[in-house]
Formats: sequence, C-alpha cells, structure tokens
Amino acid sequence: MTSPTLRLAAIAGHLDSSQDPVSSALSTSVPPVQLNRDTLSILLDGEDQTWRKWLKQPLFKYKYNITKEEAVKLNQARFRYLAENGFRQKWSEPNDPAKYDGIQEALSYYDNALSTMGGAHVGLYSGSIRELGSEELKAKYLPLADSFELPGCFALTELGHGSNPRGIETEAHWDAKQGCYILHTPNTTAQKARTILSLIDMNPEQIYWIGAAAETAIMSVVWAQLYVPHPEDSSRWQHQGIHAFLVPLRDRATHATLPGITIRNCGMKSGLNGMDNGRIWFDHVPVPRTMCLDKYGGINEEGVYESMFQNKDQRFGGQLVNLSEGRVGLAVSSVNMAKIALTIAIRYAQTRRQFGAREFGQLETLIMDYNLHQRRLYPLLAQTYAMHFAARTIAKLKDAEKTELKEIKQFHVISSGLKSLHTWHLLDTLQATREACGGQGLKSSNRIGHMKADCDTMATYEGDNQVMLITVAKGSLPDYSPKKRSALQSFNKDKFVGQTFSDATLLSAEWQLDLFQHHVLAASLRLSTAVAKTRATSAAAAAAGSSSAPSLDSILDQHAALSQEFARAVIEHWILNELVVAERADKTGALTLVRQLHALWKMDMDANMVRRRYVDEGVQERVRDLVGATIHRVHENVDVLVGAFGVPDHLLGSIAGDWVEANGVDGDEDI
Amino acid sequence: MTSPTLRLAAIAGHLDSSQDPVSSALSTSVPPVQLNRDTLSILLDGEDQTWRKWLKQPLFKYKYNITKEEAVKLNQARFRYLAENGFRQKWSEPNDPAKYDGIQEALSYYDNALSTMGGAHVGLYSGSIRELGSEELKAKYLPLADSFELPGCFALTELGHGSNPRGIETEAHWDAKQGCYILHTPNTTAQKARTILSLIDMNPEQIYWIGAAAETAIMSVVWAQLYVPHPEDSSRWQHQGIHAFLVPLRDRATHATLPGITIRNCGMKSGLNGMDNGRIWFDHVPVPRTMCLDKYGGINEEGVYESMFQNKDQRFGGQLVNLSEGRVGLAVSSVNMAKIALTIAIRYAQTRRQFGAREFGQLETLIMDYNLHQRRLYPLLAQTYAMHFAARTIAKLKDAEKTELKEIKQFHVISSGLKSLHTWHLLDTLQATREACGGQGLKSSNRIGHMKADCDTMATYEGDNQVMLITVAKGSLPDYSPKKRSALQSFNKDKFVGQTFSDATLLSAEWQLDLFQHHVLAASLRLSTAVAKTRATSAAAAAAGSSSAPSLDSILDQHAALSQEFARAVIEHWILNELVVAERADKTGALTLVRQLHALWKMDMDANMVRRRYVDEGVQERVRDLVGATIHRVHENVDVLVGAFGVPDHLLGSIAGDWVEANGVDGDEDI
Repeated sequence: MTSPTLRLAAIAGHLDSSQDPVSSALSTSVPPVQLNRDTLSILLDGEDQTWRKWLKQPLFKYKYNITKEEAVKLNQARFRYLAENGFRQKWSEPNDPAKYDGIQEALSYYDNALSTMGGAHVGLYSGSIRELGSEELKAKYLPLADSFELPGCFALTELGHGSNPRGIETEAHWDAKQGCYILHTPNTTAQKARTILSLIDMNPEQIYWIGAAAETAIMSVVWAQLYVPHPEDSSRWQHQGIHAFLVPLRDRATHATLPGITIRNCGMKSGLNGMDNGRIWFDHVPVPRTMCLDKYGGINEEGVYESMFQNKDQRFGGQLVNLSEGRVGLAVSSVNMAKIALTIAIRYAQTRRQFGAREFGQLETLIMDYNLHQRRLYPLLAQTYAMHFAARTIAKLKDAEKTELKEIKQFHVISSGLKSLHTWHLLDTLQATREACGGQGLKSSNRIGHMKADCDTMATYEGDNQVMLITVAKGSLPDYSPKKRSALQSFNKDKFVGQTFSDATLLSAEWQLDLFQHHVLAASLRLSTAVAKTRATSAAAAAAGSSSAPSLDSILDQHAALSQEFARAVIEHWILNELVVAERADKTGALTLVRQLHALWKMDMDANMVRRRYVDEGVQERVRDLVGATIHRVHENVDVLVGAFGVPDHLLGSIAGDWVEANGVDGDEDI
Repeated sequence: MTSPTLRLAAIAGHLDSSQDPVSSALSTSVPPVQLNRDTLSILLDGEDQTWRKWLKQPLFKYKYNITKEEAVKLNQARFRYLAENGFRQKWSEPNDPAKYDGIQEALSYYDNALSTMGGAHVGLYSGSIRELGSEELKAKYLPLADSFELPGCFALTELGHGSNPRGIETEAHWDAKQGCYILHTPNTTAQKARTILSLIDMNPEQIYWIGAAAETAIMSVVWAQLYVPHPEDSSRWQHQGIHAFLVPLRDRATHATLPGITIRNCGMKSGLNGMDNGRIWFDHVPVPRTMCLDKYGGINEEGVYESMFQNKDQRFGGQLVNLSEGRVGLAVSSVNMAKIALTIAIRYAQTRRQFGAREFGQLETLIMDYNLHQRRLYPLLAQTYAMHFAARTIAKLKDAEKTELKEIKQFHVISSGLKSLHTWHLLDTLQATREACGGQGLKSSNRIGHMKADCDTMATYEGDNQVMLITVAKGSLPDYSPKKRSALQSFNKDKFVGQTFSDATLLSAEWQLDLFQHHVLAASLRLSTAVAKTRATSAAAAAAGSSSAPSLDSILDQHAALSQEFARAVIEHWILNELVVAERADKTGALTLVRQLHALWKMDMDANMVRRRYVDEGVQERVRDLVGATIHRVHENVDVLVGAFGVPDHLLGSIAGDWVEANGVDGDEDI
C-alpha cells in the first residue's frame, strides 16, 4: 500500500545510519585536545634533537640530474665527510647504540642512498667484524673501517639466492697444507648459452646486489659454505654450513681488483643509484685462517674445525643477528621518510587552491579543506604516529640485553613483521602523497618522487616483505596454541556480536585493543585449524604411502591467505598496543586522537577485519561515521600534528614553502 | 560439560567453512578450459599484430644511465625517426583512428616517454589544430606538424591550475587597432619575496608542465582567457572564456626563443625525463587573428567576437574533446604496460627457485609454485584481462560518431572513470610485479622499475584520478535517480541475504554481474540519500539566512567516501560487463576463468563490497574458497594466459628469459 517514494525513503533509512551528528558525540566522549607542538615533539623524539641541525653543508645540497657514476661519487664524498668529521667516534662506541641510531636517523631523513651506505658499511660490514671477529682482527681493522679508510661491503646474497641465503653456493674449502681457506665461485663459466628450460634446473651463484661492491669497497665480509676435510676420511669434505670471511677485494693504493677476483656493476636501477651494487666472482682466492670471522665456528690454531653450535642452522642464525638489526633500521627509516612526505604534502595542500570558486576569478578552495583530500592523507598521518612508537620500541629492544631464547625469538618475529608493515606503509604514503601533490609530486626537487624511487627497494632488501610475514606467522603460531593461551580456551567468536556500543566505547583504547586482540585470536584459530586439518589429511596419505608429510612452510603456503591475515593481525595489534602505551604518557590528547583514527580506519578499511564481521552491521556503520568525525578533528589540529614531526625546512621540497617563488624565472631547475 | 578441546573443535568448525574440496565443485560446474594461445591472442588483439615487429632498430635499444638532457635528445631522435619513416601518413588520416591507435599502442609497449611525446604532439598539439583550426591553418600547419618539422606542445595548465584548467589566468586581449590578440602572463614579477601566508591569497600563473616545451617545441597551442572590447562600451573588457591560439615559441632556424617569450625547464622528475616539461611566460606577445583556433569562438573578419555557444563553459568543453581522447589512450596504455610487467614477473617466477629444499644442495621450489606468489600476481592478471576489453570498448566509443548529448556525456564519464581505475591498476601491478621480482625488479634493464618511474604521472596527468572519480559520481548520479531507474523502485537491499548459492551460481557471469549491479544500486541510494539530506539541511539553513546553499560539488565532497564508492562501483560494473560480453564470444574458456577470478577477488578483497554484507557470511566464506580454487586453475593455464598477451621478446627484461646468461661476466651493465 506504500507508494514507491515512501518505500524508497524506508530503504534509504535502512541504508543510512548516520542519523545524528557524530561530532557532538565525539566532543562529549573525548576530552578536548590540548595540542602543543613542542610537548608533542619531545614525546616523539626526546629532548635531544640536535640531528635536525646537521647536513646543511654545501656538499649536502641535493643534486638529481646526474648519472649513476656521479651519484656514487657524491654519495662517497658525503660519507667520507661524515667519517672524517667526528661521526667516526660515535660509530666506534658499541656500548652506545643510541648514538649510532641518532646518526642513522639523521642520514635517513636526509637521503636514503647515504643512509643505506651507512647501514651497509657500519651496520653490516664493520658490524660483522665487531660482532664476529677475533680481538686481533677487531684491533687491526675496525679503526680503518670506521674512518672509511677501508670502505667495505657485505657479500651474502647471490644471483640465485636472495630471500633464502641459507642456499648460497659460494664455497670455502679449508686447505690444511697451505693453512688457508680457498674461496671460490663454482661453475661460473658453465652459465653460458643455456636455454630457459635448462635454467630451471640450475642454480646460478655469483655474489649479487652487494652494496658498495661495484666501485667503493676495498674490503668485503664474504659469506660462503665452509667445507673442511672429514675428520675420519680426509679425502672427503665435511659441510659445516655458512661462515663469514674478511676478504680484500681491491688494492688499497691503486683500487685495482685483486688477483682471482672479478667485479661487475649490477647496472642502472630505478632508484638508489648512489649505492653502487656489484657482482663478485672468486676464483680460488686464498684467505688466511685468521681472516675468518669465527666467533661461532672456524678452524682453530690446531687446524681443526670447532664451533659452539652443533646445528649448522643455529650457527648461521647466530651470525646473522646484524641482519635483524638492519630490519629495525628500516622500520625506523620508514617512519622518518613518511613524516617528510606527509609534511610536504600537507603543507602544500594548505597553500594550494583548486576548484570551488563560484565564478571565474574568485578565490578557489584550499585543497586541504576537501574531505576527499583529508581522507587521502590523514589516515596515513595517524598510522605514521602509530608506527613511530612501534619503531621506537623495537629499536630499544634491539639494544636491550636478550638472555632468553624466547626474547631473541620474539625480537626476531616482531622486527621482521615491523620491517614489512613499516616499509609498505612508507611506500603507500609516498604514493599517496606523490599523487596528492599532482605533477609537483614527481618533481625531484620536491623530494617525494625521488624518495619513492630510492625507497622502493626497502620492501625487498633485508628480507622480502611477504617472506617476512611468513616468518611472523610461523614464529607466532606456537604462541597461539590453544594449549598455551588461556584466552583461546574461552574464546568466543561472537564476543562483540548482537551488541551496541556507545561512541565513547568505540573510541576508547581498551575497546579498540580488545577488538584487535580478538582479530588475532580468531585469525590464529582459523590458521591453526586449517594447518591441523592439512596435517591430518597428509598424515593419512603418508600412512597409506601415497606421499611424504609436507613441511610446516609448505602447509602455511597452502593457507597463504590465512597465514598473511594472521601475521598482519599479530603485528597490527602489537603496533596499536605500543601506541596506547605511549598515549598513557601523553597529556596533550594528540595521541588519543591519532590512535582513534588509526584504529577506526583499520576497522573500516581492512578487508580482512571487515570480512570477519566481528561486530554487528550497525556498529560497523557507526565506526565509519566516527572515522569521518575523527578526520575532521585531525584537520582542526593538523598544524600541530605535522609540526611536531619537526622535519627541518632544509629537508623539505619547495612546495612545502613558497613554491611560487621557487618556480620563478630564476628558480633552480635541475638541482 | 564439554572439555576445552571439544569446545575448541566446535569453534574451529564454525570458523572454517571449507568442509569439502572446492576444486571438485569447480570441475563439475565449469566446462574444462580448452586454452589455445593463438585463438586467445586473436580474441585480444585481432588478426593484425604487425606492431609487434616494430621498434627493433638499433636506435630503439634501451638506454637508462643517461642525464635528462640525453634522455630528451634520444626521445626526439626516436620520434623524428618515426615521423620520417612512414608513420606520418598514418597520423594524417583523421578518418582512420584505428591506425593512430595502433601506432600509439606500439609506442606505449615500447616506452612511455615516446608514447607520451606521441600523445602530446599528435593527439594534443596537431590534434587541436585539426579539430579546432580553420581550413587555411590546417593546410599550412598540419603537414609540418605531422612530419615533426614543426614540433609542438599543448600549453593549457599553469603553475596555479592543473586539475582545474577552467581557472587558468593567461590572458589574450583583442587589440582591434593592431588586429591581433595580445597574449600575456599577468603578474609574473610580483611573485618575488612572498611569504607562505600571502601565497594563500595569490594565484600563480606561469604556464607549467608543458610537455616538449622546455627543449623540443617550435610551436605551441596556447590556451588563454579571452577578453574582447565590450560591444556597448569599448573602454571595458568582456570576458569570453578560454580559447586556443597557435603560437610560435622558437625561431625555426636558430631554435632561439622568440621575443616576449620566456621558457624554463620544469626540472628533473622521478620519471619520464625523456619528456622535456617546460614553463612558459608571455610578455604581451601579438598573435595574428587567423592563428586563433576558432571553431567554437573567436574574432571574425569583421573584428567582432562570435561563437556557436552562448555559455562559456560549454565553449571550453567543446574545445577539450581531445583531452577525453587522451584519457582513453591512458586506459589502453595502462593495459599494455600491465601485460609487459606481468609477463616479465610470471616468466621470471617460472624459472626462479627459492626455499623448499629439505636439505642443502637439493633443488628448491619454483617461486611461481607458491600459493603466496600466485595470490600476488594472478588476480592482477585476471584484472588485466578485464581491463583489456574495457579499454577496447572505450577506444571504439571514442571513434564512434556521437550525435546525442547523452552519448557524449556517457563517453566522458566512462573514459574518466576508466582513466582512473586503469592507471591505478597499472601502478598496483607495477608495484606488485616489481616486488615479486625482488631486487631484479629494480634493475632498469628488467624494465619494471623503469616503467614504474615513467608511469607514475599517469595517475595525475589528463586529470587527477580522484578528481576523475568525482566526475564519474557527479555524472552518474542523475542516471541513478529513483525516478529514472525502475530497478531502484523495486530495489531490495536484502536481495541476496538469507540465501545459499551453489558454486556454479557463484561462479556464473549472470550472478556475478547481478551482484556488481546490486552494489551500484545500493551505493547510488546511499549517496543520493546523503545528498538529499544535506540539501534539505542546507536549504533550511539558507531559508533561515545563516548560509548559502552549497554546490553539488561541495555536497559530494562532504560525502567523499560514498561518492568514491559509488563511482568505483559504476566503473567496476561497466568493466565486468565488458568482460562478460567478450566472454560470450570466447570458445576457449579462458575468459570465463579470468572473469571468475576477477569478480570473486573483488567480492573477497574490496572492503567497500565486503563491508556492505550483500551476502550471508557463509556465502562470503565460500567466495573466498572459490578464489583459491580459481587461482589454482589459472596456475594450470598460466602459460597460455600470459602467452596470449604476445608481448615480443625484445620488449621484455632479461629476467623473463635467460637471466643467468644476461648476468654473466660480459653481461650488459648500464644499458
């Protein structure tokens, strides 16, 4: 009996749940934000922000229109300047990692090529000497490494083995007669003239992607499979797994490649060309016994192999602690660079007008005043705040004494997960801010486009991001065994269903954390159930003789979607938790605001969370309304939120300032 | 009374809905795919694939490690070669747009800088002369433009106006005494020494981002606000809106900038540096009356302004038809480049092994055999197929005679929407394939990283993608008025709720299209309800005198999330529909397979669709299971699906072939 119009109105009522203004709800349920840029800045970065004054010397003026060779020379010159001007002492203080972090932070704010060179040279190359070398080796080589008199590289990955370095094929055979290791790249010449089909069956083995190898390095920490004569039958070789050796690549005086060593450039890349990635072949190069970085294993003075580990994998794991630390560095750098990009894009949008004039000639609307533009940038701003505190915590964990295996494992899992989510967040932020700045976002001197090119590799190096999430899933699943977790035994998948919640509840840290935790538990149950089922099926098949039992890796890959969902849930929860911890120490209200937006945005936009219907449809809709209201409040406070990042003006592109003047007739063109 | 273990098993049962194997359901409900690469290739690209043989001359060998200036010179040389070697005639045939499209397609497969130069020179510059110029002008200038003897550019956007070209400020005043237009850039010198605050109130006005202006162009099509003496009072100016003028920028013999014209380079960009973007100022430059491209309006021989349109906006819209065609070109190019990236990444993954060996030295697993890797690439492969047919259809619509305003509007809306979704799809594909290739994805010679840098601007030029979606929402909303659409009058938001569906139904084109259409209708209702409510509120406020009524643009921005959701839904439905149309002509079954994966993936992963709970939770879970099963079937047929793209080997990076040989000691380093 109802008319079509009435019927439509009724339908529309169902579809639209935002019956009352949300902002009033927000303003009553949340204390007003008392934002203060300086207070917030100290909360973020502490009192010591001296690094912000660094790197203003003429040598550090950005240059973009240069060849790969020029970029490398510039990067070397900048790095040498740092090494010769007091940074050396700081690098040499192993007991004060915070100083090293401070330097790395300054470099990563400045330029990813320079910070990557710093990370590779200081963290990986001299870090390996420091961590794994004998006292004699350290005394002789560390000062030369720290001063950049002996620039070095870290030669682990190969053409055929990147994500899986355990499979590298470079060989070191112990030659008892000569009393040295023989370092060798097998089968290089056999590479020629192969077809794709035969390629499937081969493993290529040159050492590949080695940062600073192509031009810069004089020394290298080279990783190889160690073979020693079998103690019971010296005509056979005994495989001892991967070990590291300090190997000179070039003559210190002439810079010529040493005999037996062949080096080639990895070629032009789409970014980070200030880093000279190289490829290395060794042709039976002798390495003195004392040049093995043998903390965890090597040939002793008696010519006998000894190691504190029986298990080859454990041995390798122990040596790779520096790689985990590299992941922490990437998480921290990602946050820093996201701050730069957001500062540039938001400040530009605060001075850029487009559309909105009723008539030609009238003032147009600031693009930052568009709801559409706010939705592009503010959720990323909130997430950057969240990731800032997660990165700080993991950096502290890196430096903390870890005595129990459980702590070491936890650090490994979380740093792997943060490396993935933080670097992806950076890439997403660079893409969104680049687009938000239109064509200006591509202009190198505005930095975002250039950073995009230089940072892309962060998703890949120090562990492919997707592989890192497998590490998280594999490492976390035992922690979420129903036997261990009392929360799982009483887990109620409908915990939030059939309920309504006040806005104050939906906005509260407790409720949001509770929901994120619920997501972790639900995802762990889905995954462990799927794993158990696959195991049962394959056990039955194995019993019937039809196949062998698959590995856990293989099972997790069969359930790749569930594995990724679980891994992300674990890390997202960890990040939110760290933000809430920081929020409790915040008197300005700023962290409450960004925490609300960060969590609500995930609840609204993450298909994994939305798909699971943890809450009723009306609650889900209300979350969406609250996203809008929270974005509105961020907009009111955005100057302080961005200002507290404290990115120095000399590190911003001209569109963050007076971009009209910068684009004058006499403006700087190519930089 | 139940034990914790039993309880957990019960919970787990709830959580896991994949009780029966999906693949058996798939194999009974869908006919087996009879894939044939050649048949599929003809279905995609027709019989004439001669373009695949082009561009193998030495001049077209890729070079990457070059400066901006070298890149421009190389791009010019390549373009000149094309112009001098038979391509000219094809460009000159306005009645055979398919030939022009074929050339553009070949160029876009080869290199985005070259295809952008082609698009700007042929499509925009000489296209404007052809479309808007007088017969005399065409006779004189078109042959010189087509042969590249008079290279040209298209000078529309300004520093202060990119997305909103209606607001440009370059001026042309009709000087009746001299009988010419005076072209002028106002206020340039006043740019100096402004602060950020004053910047907010100013409009900068140099012509900016003009492709080929910095170095290449001799001529330019310049757009300016036309002012003519007021017919009733010649002491006042009458504004006639935007008009185009053919203006020489440089001396043809010396290449020196002509008097009154100042040109600067836009500087280094993060990509597309083969295109020399420039900035132009005009200082009272006289332009002869006959050089106005006056099809839609200009000063006639009697010295009086006349136009076929009264409305200035209509006048401008009519002149910008070439821009809409540019959007179609971007949609087509995006598909082509996505095909290249997917071909490279998938072929690499078919020869690259990593992990999976039980013991050191055993053969590792091909990365394409990992479910995780398949989920990274195959949904993008399926979407590329979908977008291929959408791009083909819109290209045909571009060339079709459009007589009714409705047709013109529909073309404008769909081409704007496809431009956004296609270019974003390309950027997503380049990012995913880049990461899927690890470090090799960054190496310029492997093309993906370089394409990523060169294609990023596609999200911005010819209309910012987000702004394009507003165009779609605004243009489509009237079509979804409940008064017009009978489907909306009987719309039942719970149409799919409370039902189960067989796998055959969930996989069918009819059901999937129906669901996508349901999403469009629901999104249109949500948006139109929100718009109506805001209008009512503001009408009441306006009646009370507290504010003026907001524009529709402003209201759509207030509901930015709903607007974007609606716009995407409209275009996604259009794309799926085009794929289904193509599928009906396909006897191989290939398009059925990719259509299934494409639609299921959206239903599973698009937070907008998932959030709305169109189907029951069990159905949603089943969709997820079917995604997995469909990916498995794509994997079985991937050689044919990728092979049918027919990307020639000389356009692929070495990792798509024998990458071990390419990385030999004598391999090409910098290219």
